[in-house]
Amino acid sequence: MTEKDGIPPPETTSKSAAKKIQSKRGKQPSTQEYVDGILGGSIPFLSRAITLVESTRPKHQEQANEILKACLPYANKSIRIGITGVPGVGKSTFIEAFGKHLTSKGKKVAVLAVDPSSSVNRGSILGDKTRMEQLVTDQNAFIRPSPSGTSLGGVAQKTRESIILCEAAGFDTIIIETVGVGQSETMVHSMVDFFLLLKIAGAGDELQGIKRGIIEMADSIVINKADGENVKNTKIAKVEFNRALHLYPPKQSGWQPKVLTASALKNIGIDSISDMLDDYVKNTKESNYFYEKREQQNEFWLASTIKQSLQDSFFKNDQIQLALSKELENVKNGVSTPFSSAKSLLKLYNDKA
Amino acid sequence: MTEKDGIPPPETTSKSAAKKIQSKRGKQPSTQEYVDGILGGSIPFLSRAITLVESTRPKHQEQANEILKACLPYANKSIRIGITGVPGVGKSTFIEAFGKHLTSKGKKVAVLAVDPSSSVNRGSILGDKTRMEQLVTDQNAFIRPSPSGTSLGGVAQKTRESIILCEAAGFDTIIIETVGVGQSETMVHSMVDFFLLLKIAGAGDELQGIKRGIIEMADSIVINKADGENVKNTKIAKVEFNRALHLYPPKQSGWQPKVLTASALKNIGIDSISDMLDDYVKNTKESNYFYEKREQQNEFWLASTIKQSLQDSFFKNDQIQLALSKELENVKNGVSTPFSSAKSLLKLYNDKA
Repeated sequence: MTEKDGIPPPETTSKSAAKKIQSKRGKQPSTQEYVDGILGGSIPFLSRAITLVESTRPKHQEQANEILKACLPYANKSIRIGITGVPGVGKSTFIEAFGKHLTSKGKKVAVLAVDPSSSVNRGSILGDKTRMEQLVTDQNAFIRPSPSGTSLGGVAQKTRESIILCEAAGFDTIIIETVGVGQSETMVHSMVDFFLLLKIAGAGDELQGIKRGIIEMADSIVINKADGENVKNTKIAKVEFNRALHLYPPKQSGWQPKVLTASALKNIGIDSISDMLDDYVKNTKESNYFYEKREQQNEFWLASTIKQSLQDSFFKNDQIQLALSKELENVKNGVSTPFSSAKSLLKLYNDKA
Repeated sequence: MTEKDGIPPPETTSKSAAKKIQSKRGKQPSTQEYVDGILGGSIPFLSRAITLVESTRPKHQEQANEILKACLPYANKSIRIGITGVPGVGKSTFIEAFGKHLTSKGKKVAVLAVDPSSSVNRGSILGDKTRMEQLVTDQNAFIRPSPSGTSLGGVAQKTRESIILCEAAGFDTIIIETVGVGQSETMVHSMVDFFLLLKIAGAGDELQGIKRGIIEMADSIVINKADGENVKNTKIAKVEFNRALHLYPPKQSGWQPKVLTASALKNIGIDSISDMLDDYVKNTKESNYFYEKREQQNEFWLASTIKQSLQDSFFKNDQIQLALSKELENVKNGVSTPFSSAKSLLKLYNDKA
């Protein structure tokens, strides 16, 4: 995706809608046109607005902010689900089966991907839409690849803002897909209501290699590919994962994380996952935890955006970078403590400002 | 501990040394006298220098910094061990037995406590020294209660600086004791070479209630009170903990965390713990990990001191506090996103500076 030539054409899933917006190509729709389009459920307008959110151009960002502000009162009404799992676990197949199940029940499903590693190669885990052939042609589904970005924080902001736009466009289920490596899980966990870890049963020890902390973030572990000869292994894995979940203290939500098995390919067990989700939402809304968590997440994102910005200003300052490398040498050579070096650097920074 | 009347008299464990420093009471020793005293292994001078480090008076802090700078070249040569465990696990008894074992082998052992919660009541988990009756009278041991402090970062800095002073005074084993609750473990983990989690076998599920993340920080879990009728339970617990440790991916150090059993009260199994520690140090020094970790820890403390200071300047600013509560309301009422609120606050802060 290049932004060199301004806003790229919207991604379209509906031919007639595409035609409508295409006739205006070359001319940027007004903020009001965007808002009307989004609130009217227009996928092309939604898609193009997300492109604005993702743009690094100040003019685009300004318009994106206006659109977001107008959409905010209509947002916040969906269920946000984070889905993670290492490559090979069948994430795309699972999301397709799960998404189809939800749309068949009358839901409107948006799938957003988060893959900060894609900032390097500007690729995306969902770039290849053919991986979700059925969902991509579903009128009630919207699939959006990972935004590229130079930082985890940047990708987080773009994703959070895209969620708002999707919700305003009437999507009642937002799925945030992420790869089971790196720090993106913590980020996704901080923007969803429910966090689902997708696994497969393998030979040997099921639990080796799980990234620290991911199991304890999970509200559910779903063991995928529970079909054919794999069923037996899946049952063993289920016992192991249940034991693993048992190691952690109760969650603040009061929810006991569940281990389920499924075969996305054969469409087995998908309805149980959907039921579990309904259960979770019902329970946590009754206890008010659902709403409290969202409020906490807002505060978290406000505070972490500020912290990140303060740090960037400091550590990306040329003068500081020079002085920092000298102070690190001093600490290494035992002529300064980390604390007195920090003090010197802060003094330099504040005197400068 | 009050600092109202200036520096309190040093804590003494050696009568003759106490006499020497007492004759100078009322007059603050010079920095050179402090440094000579510490490098000569004087406990009274060491103790009084730590009191300077802990003081909040600018004049004291200045002298403390001079002393630290002069001591730095002689520091860094000990093994630093973090020991944690919830109240009731027998931490004091264990540290006493372990400390005595080490001094009997010719080691010099310093025990520092970290308990940020003590900042509230100005108490301390090691305040009651009678809990380590034997170690406290040992000429080769030095026991120091937790510094009081208004923040985790403040306590961390004081403890890190006290380690330097103890090392310069010739202590070759530094034990940092902390309670198994709250965030202090992460802090202690970031300042030690080896992290030991003390547990006891109980009835029922051994693993319930362990604070998230502590097990995976542990280089060893020692199950204490393995004596009498408890031996059987301890063996079961050992299996459970071994299984729990098995759930985590290999550590960067290449070290496979060990589960050992001990009875500090009956002095059983203490030598094995000491052997394990020697093993760890030998292995990680050979692989260079030991030194790399210390360098990483220095960088961590430098960076985290800076980050904390930047945040404090921002969030403790009166004008920001006022604006922040308004922005939080805006986010809550759906008229602003966390990101646009953060942007407004940062603009206010930067315009002001």
